[in-house]
Amino acid sequence: MDKVTVAVIGLGNMGTAHAACIAKGEVCGMELVAVCDTNENKTEPFIEKYSHVKTYVDYKVMLEKEDLDAVIIAVPHPLHSEIAIYALEHNVHVLLEKPADISISKVKVMNAVAEKSDKVFAIMFNQRTNQLFAKAREIVKSGQLGELKRTVWIVTNWYRTQSYYKSGDWRATWKGEGGGVLLNQAPHNLDLWQWICGMPESVVGYCSIAKYHDIEVEDDATILTRYKNGATGTFITSTGEYPGTNRLEISGDLGKLVLEAGVLKWWKLKQSEREVCVTAEKGCAKIEYEYSEFTQEHKETAHKGILQNFTNAILYGEELLSPGTDGIYELTISNAAYLSSWLGNTEVTLPLDTELFDSLLQEHAAKSKSVITEDHKAPSDIYKDRWQVNW
Amino acid sequence: MDKVTVAVIGLGNMGTAHAACIAKGEVCGMELVAVCDTNENKTEPFIEKYSHVKTYVDYKVMLEKEDLDAVIIAVPHPLHSEIAIYALEHNVHVLLEKPADISISKVKVMNAVAEKSDKVFAIMFNQRTNQLFAKAREIVKSGQLGELKRTVWIVTNWYRTQSYYKSGDWRATWKGEGGGVLLNQAPHNLDLWQWICGMPESVVGYCSIAKYHDIEVEDDATILTRYKNGATGTFITSTGEYPGTNRLEISGDLGKLVLEAGVLKWWKLKQSEREVCVTAEKGCAKIEYEYSEFTQEHKETAHKGILQNFTNAILYGEELLSPGTDGIYELTISNAAYLSSWLGNTEVTLPLDTELFDSLLQEHAAKSKSVITEDHKAPSDIYKDRWQVNW
Repeated sequence: MDKVTVAVIGLGNMGTAHAACIAKGEVCGMELVAVCDTNENKTEPFIEKYSHVKTYVDYKVMLEKEDLDAVIIAVPHPLHSEIAIYALEHNVHVLLEKPADISISKVKVMNAVAEKSDKVFAIMFNQRTNQLFAKAREIVKSGQLGELKRTVWIVTNWYRTQSYYKSGDWRATWKGEGGGVLLNQAPHNLDLWQWICGMPESVVGYCSIAKYHDIEVEDDATILTRYKNGATGTFITSTGEYPGTNRLEISGDLGKLVLEAGVLKWWKLKQSEREVCVTAEKGCAKIEYEYSEFTQEHKETAHKGILQNFTNAILYGEELLSPGTDGIYELTISNAAYLSSWLGNTEVTLPLDTELFDSLLQEHAAKSKSVITEDHKAPSDIYKDRWQVNW
Repeated sequence: MDKVTVAVIGLGNMGTAHAACIAKGEVCGMELVAVCDTNENKTEPFIEKYSHVKTYVDYKVMLEKEDLDAVIIAVPHPLHSEIAIYALEHNVHVLLEKPADISISKVKVMNAVAEKSDKVFAIMFNQRTNQLFAKAREIVKSGQLGELKRTVWIVTNWYRTQSYYKSGDWRATWKGEGGGVLLNQAPHNLDLWQWICGMPESVVGYCSIAKYHDIEVEDDATILTRYKNGATGTFITSTGEYPGTNRLEISGDLGKLVLEAGVLKWWKLKQSEREVCVTAEKGCAKIEYEYSEFTQEHKETAHKGILQNFTNAILYGEELLSPGTDGIYELTISNAAYLSSWLGNTEVTLPLDTELFDSLLQEHAAKSKSVITEDHKAPSDIYKDRWQVNW
């Protein structure tokens, strides 16, 4: 096998961008043979440009008729796991857009199917390709920061206007999208947060519904987390502030990391703070440290990087940077934050009570004014700047 | 009247520093005539240096015998309002160390006395003398930031070792000190927070007791606030992290302020975000802004600045930078945070239920292992660096 034949399912903004990227030959070893969207208005303009690509309105028919190695799934969130499961069970490698789905109960089923399958299953956490997040992870995972004490991520630079939310009827509804900023924009950050710092044991969510926009779901949220070792976390996000901030701070027994404005700052203590605390004579002791800074030597490979990694995993067994089964982690945090918020900001301990979560999500969805339609905004065929890490 | 005769009550670290500063003639127009401490071991080393100063063990006796214009009160927190009230009622101007006391019910009584009195009443919020906080306040109060949306203050650079807490038996106990980092270190920041952004309508407190030290009270806290206009706040503090952070962010409809590392950064939007949100065609609109930075041209005058301002207010009617009655604001926030924490992190709305707070504080104090003693650490006679704003 020297190339991967692939189809893209769902031609919204992201699906169209992925399809165009592959069609232009930008992913080495991957060939786009088909695209699929339930709305023919989406596929028509695409094949005007890329006439060799076949089009379908039904992914099941496509999987039957085409000899596909892989599919890329970029449909509205509530359909993610269902299509991924179908594809994996029909012997096709799967790259899934984030989030994994809207409820982890569905993701658990998908992950079980993926684990039994011998197919490659990846998820589009493209910000994992950013070397600064990878460096922060390396420092934390190697123990060089010591036991974690606290982490604070202010990521309020997901600015969106009302016009954004009008670009698809499914958007920003409980039924169509399954949530707001925590489910659509922040999954990248929630994933990196758990990728670097690990999963919390409990979550408190303060979600503000329609604070800045005429929508059904939250566009502003604060999450508080507690970890097994007693460390705590704060995560603040919004689509209603300008100019926003993107600043991750992680403090541990051996120092501190701050990642902001494309610079990773590292204060590396020469002595354990916990040791100094109990041995120092001075009340306000100073601890010596080495300070270093890391900047991004190159822009992250982002979506193309994940597409290439997915291709290489199929062709050469390369390790996945973003395994599909990892999708459950960040979604667990956002599901828990919603549940906490619905329960009056109570502390929700993990593992999540998925039955309770699903029943409350369904209650919200039942009241949804909107349904899934295919009335997306005109697709764009390039990876816009906003799909890189935005400092 | 061309000079203010003053006595210092309480010769712990701060009282000794204030007394020495005045005795050395560093406060123009103020003359130290007496010092008072219930523990003679505290006054003796002081008058070895400043032999013209009289000493007392009982402030009531001192007020009777000396012809004093003013007193500076720097005793353990739970005694603050009681002594201030006594002094004001005995016709003496009062400068009170922070916090105002340990419960706002006591502070309300003190403020009522102060309001009826024609005496000058000030409180030692020395960080108000920092020009960057004053500049941030000016920008916010003048409306140049627009309606506030969010404020986040990470102030975790109040590092203290176990030895610090051992330096006085009254320290870090419910009975002797009335609280931990929120009552001892963070009052400066809580005061500046409300001074710049105004008072919240509700407070949620997550206080961690003895997380990093062998103490009775919290050494780590996260506070969430809500303001009348819907804006939210997050305040994070700790005495157990190194190196800590001191970063205040305020975001509004017309931009953002960030104050960190001695630099105030200002993003001033050329158009209201709320207006752009509903009128822009683009989903991820960009809004033009002017960016400016302000640095500290001089170190803040800190404690000396407040001493001088207090003196000038008495001599020439100069406006107080930090009126004594303002002490109630930050204490309301920390009282509310404790109450919320004791009630399982429920949202506490203001005005505070002081009866409930006082009864719960008393419960905690009743279980206190320690009592107020005068076993302070050896006093220092200089204003240490840590008493400036620590970036």
